[in-house]
Amino acid sequence: VNILLHYIEKTFDVKSKILDFHHPHQLLEGLDGFDLELSDRPESLEQLLVDCTDTLKYGVKTGHPRYFNQLSSGLDVIGLAGEWLTATANTNMFTYEIAPVFTIMETVLLKKMCEIIGWRETEADGIFSPGGSISNLYGILVARYKQYPEIKAKGMAVLPCIVLFVSEQGHYSIKKAAATLGIGTDNVIEVKCDERGKMIPAELEKNILQAKRKGQTPFCVVATAGSTVFGAFDPLHDIADICEIHRLWMHVDAAWGGGLLLSRKHSYKLSGIERADSVTWNPHKLMGVPLQCSALLTREKGLLGACNQMQAEYLFQPDKVYNINFDTGDKTIQCGRHVDVFKLWLMWKAKGTYGFEVQIDRYMELAKYFYKVLKKKDNFKLVFDAEPEFTNVCFWYFPPRLKHIPKSFERDQELQKIAPKIKAQMIVEGTVMLSYQPCGDKVNFFRMVFSNPATRQTDVDYLIDEIQRLGKDL
Amino acid sequence: VNILLHYIEKTFDVKSKILDFHHPHQLLEGLDGFDLELSDRPESLEQLLVDCTDTLKYGVKTGHPRYFNQLSSGLDVIGLAGEWLTATANTNMFTYEIAPVFTIMETVLLKKMCEIIGWRETEADGIFSPGGSISNLYGILVARYKQYPEIKAKGMAVLPCIVLFVSEQGHYSIKKAAATLGIGTDNVIEVKCDERGKMIPAELEKNILQAKRKGQTPFCVVATAGSTVFGAFDPLHDIADICEIHRLWMHVDAAWGGGLLLSRKHSYKLSGIERADSVTWNPHKLMGVPLQCSALLTREKGLLGACNQMQAEYLFQPDKVYNINFDTGDKTIQCGRHVDVFKLWLMWKAKGTYGFEVQIDRYMELAKYFYKVLKKKDNFKLVFDAEPEFTNVCFWYFPPRLKHIPKSFERDQELQKIAPKIKAQMIVEGTVMLSYQPCGDKVNFFRMVFSNPATRQTDVDYLIDEIQRLGKDL
Repeated sequence: VNILLHYIEKTFDVKSKILDFHHPHQLLEGLDGFDLELSDRPESLEQLLVDCTDTLKYGVKTGHPRYFNQLSSGLDVIGLAGEWLTATANTNMFTYEIAPVFTIMETVLLKKMCEIIGWRETEADGIFSPGGSISNLYGILVARYKQYPEIKAKGMAVLPCIVLFVSEQGHYSIKKAAATLGIGTDNVIEVKCDERGKMIPAELEKNILQAKRKGQTPFCVVATAGSTVFGAFDPLHDIADICEIHRLWMHVDAAWGGGLLLSRKHSYKLSGIERADSVTWNPHKLMGVPLQCSALLTREKGLLGACNQMQAEYLFQPDKVYNINFDTGDKTIQCGRHVDVFKLWLMWKAKGTYGFEVQIDRYMELAKYFYKVLKKKDNFKLVFDAEPEFTNVCFWYFPPRLKHIPKSFERDQELQKIAPKIKAQMIVEGTVMLSYQPCGDKVNFFRMVFSNPATRQTDVDYLIDEIQRLGKDL
Repeated sequence: VNILLHYIEKTFDVKSKILDFHHPHQLLEGLDGFDLELSDRPESLEQLLVDCTDTLKYGVKTGHPRYFNQLSSGLDVIGLAGEWLTATANTNMFTYEIAPVFTIMETVLLKKMCEIIGWRETEADGIFSPGGSISNLYGILVARYKQYPEIKAKGMAVLPCIVLFVSEQGHYSIKKAAATLGIGTDNVIEVKCDERGKMIPAELEKNILQAKRKGQTPFCVVATAGSTVFGAFDPLHDIADICEIHRLWMHVDAAWGGGLLLSRKHSYKLSGIERADSVTWNPHKLMGVPLQCSALLTREKGLLGACNQMQAEYLFQPDKVYNINFDTGDKTIQCGRHVDVFKLWLMWKAKGTYGFEVQIDRYMELAKYFYKVLKKKDNFKLVFDAEPEFTNVCFWYFPPRLKHIPKSFERDQELQKIAPKIKAQMIVEGTVMLSYQPCGDKVNFFRMVFSNPATRQTDVDYLIDEIQRLGKDL
């Protein structure tokens, strides 16, 4: 416990390094007596404590104020306490029998989240799943089942060639889900986006009509509320209109953007989400809940159960002493399921909805500040020159030698190498962590994102200075 | 932390109750000020601590010496420490970049487990997944991809009517996976078992030939090593022979039985597992690792990656500073993935392989003891009257009024009600927890199972007395 408390203290200290980088082969070979190999005989307790210290030492402090690498960051101590309690309780979500408090907490949380989405049905439904990709898979799975309940017994053989739609900025988990579910990635039709990364409704309509002409059968549209790279919000009302006309299931991937619903100031950006049939929302992202915590929510109650249940007799006995409707485990594609609800529940108790709101509004302010500072600097260029809609801010850094060269294939070839080089140096020095990627015809650019409660304005200034320091001679 | 330590202490105390039972509606309505509803405003720290205490108070002590309810039980304090550290590190398995130590530990553990299975290939592969059901889904997913790589892009539409085989005692997750993957539950062919619950190879062969005659295309056989209810081991060599002849993928669901490979005395029961193409093995079951910890292992390296990868540019950049072969996250159907490896790694360090062996051999001894005691009692009847092959022991209890009535439909109607009534009373009194189920033509019987390190022989004796106490007047 002392090792852990010491680590937590260091995590929040900006002066400590985020990581002490080593290459994979170095770790595999063993560093300073940190031997990862397993043997037949036990180690001493002293050695185990050293192993624990080393595990933390060579890891990455994802709660460090200057860790901006992923959409999930920060270390909420209440959430952490929740996770420790969860680990101590060491139970399984499949039945009320062995997880009475946690299954009821799941019910309470799902109801709350459905209300926040704006579903007036008192009977909305959902499930916590191991991450946003699985939640998205559930959305598509339920969409398919709703249209074709015979799929469960008969498989895809009895279905027409079904296709679904997602924007070209949608998350790659949609394609993963299509591959897994036997739909095939070719049957995921990518809809063009506008320059800010939002799906263009007219393009969606066009793609649907095209598919129908080709003899394909559209069944689902996945809209994105908070895209991974640009933080873009698809126009949900327009998409909902199109889904209504063509009778398509509307799934909203709000894994990243869902948290914004808690901000009275910014929730309008998800307006129309209440018209969705299903929604993915990951509290482990914007809301800062420790990993993992992801929910799939459905407007129609009972569909998840009908789609997935197998009524295993050894687990879901009908002759139990309590109301078996609370044995929610058969709604899932899992059997055993990790308790992901308690940490969220405890954080919600600790902060209240308003507490999340304050935190999220602060991220939005930081994003605006960051955007404004970058805009003034002539060695930085924003990918979209407009005030950020979300906490993502995408930009290029131009070292002096590239700053005045006009855009050309050759210049872009050079610019492509800049972000990886700066990032490599960040990792080696352990001062700051930030993500980059190319996108379409745009060469490697940085993606700044705010979801870390420990980040202050000075950390933002530091990041800008650090990029300039590491990049100026490249 | 004090609340948690106090709970751990009570967990191991046989005199404490396993649970303090309340009905779902009571918890929903709020018990003694334990209000589960969420509000806009924060609660005080004092109230949060009370909430934590209440959460544990109304939960189930799965580590209690008399908790026999599931295949996963017990509370290993080293594993728990591992889980606390994991929670504190709060990172994600998708890239080496943000989980350098944990991704390497996964590599080390997978290699070790593949070696133990007996795969001589130095290049075996695998992934830790959120539970045995998802691991089984991976097995079938990879089997399908191996035979039909075009599935990934084109979907099931371009495949023949594929079918797979599993014994009637196999886990229900195989059917769940078939439904999810778009294969359909009708295309899961159940193979008959012998009286001990083992798949009959001749029946498998017959079913394969029948399917072929019907124009179906067999692609995979799922063998079970340690079935959920009876703890039966399918004859793996015979099944492997059949798979070779018909060129079928052989997946072994050793979620429960896998741990037995660590016992030099008992591992022969899984002989033939080295001929499998893929294996599910849940360290969170027999090995007592805290939930969740499940691995899917494949003999052919690279298949999981080829089947599942989508190369998302924002996460799996090709131009990283380290060897990107260690970014294992694209092998999965998930994106973010919980760190499930550290607790297993730490326990393995602490116990050594021999430590697991001692523990597992002790469970086997307890099962033998339990069987022998029951055999002597004329008010208990074993479902199979043979020394247990694994730690499962299935039996009926006969109250005096039913003891001398010969087997008949009417007697079985009555017997069917006995186990649920005894179980209900166990839960209400919180003295002991044990599972029951019907199976085929067998009415409700109890399933005893040993996987709890806290259990002693006296707890076994207690269980027998308790069943008699609660059941004698029924």
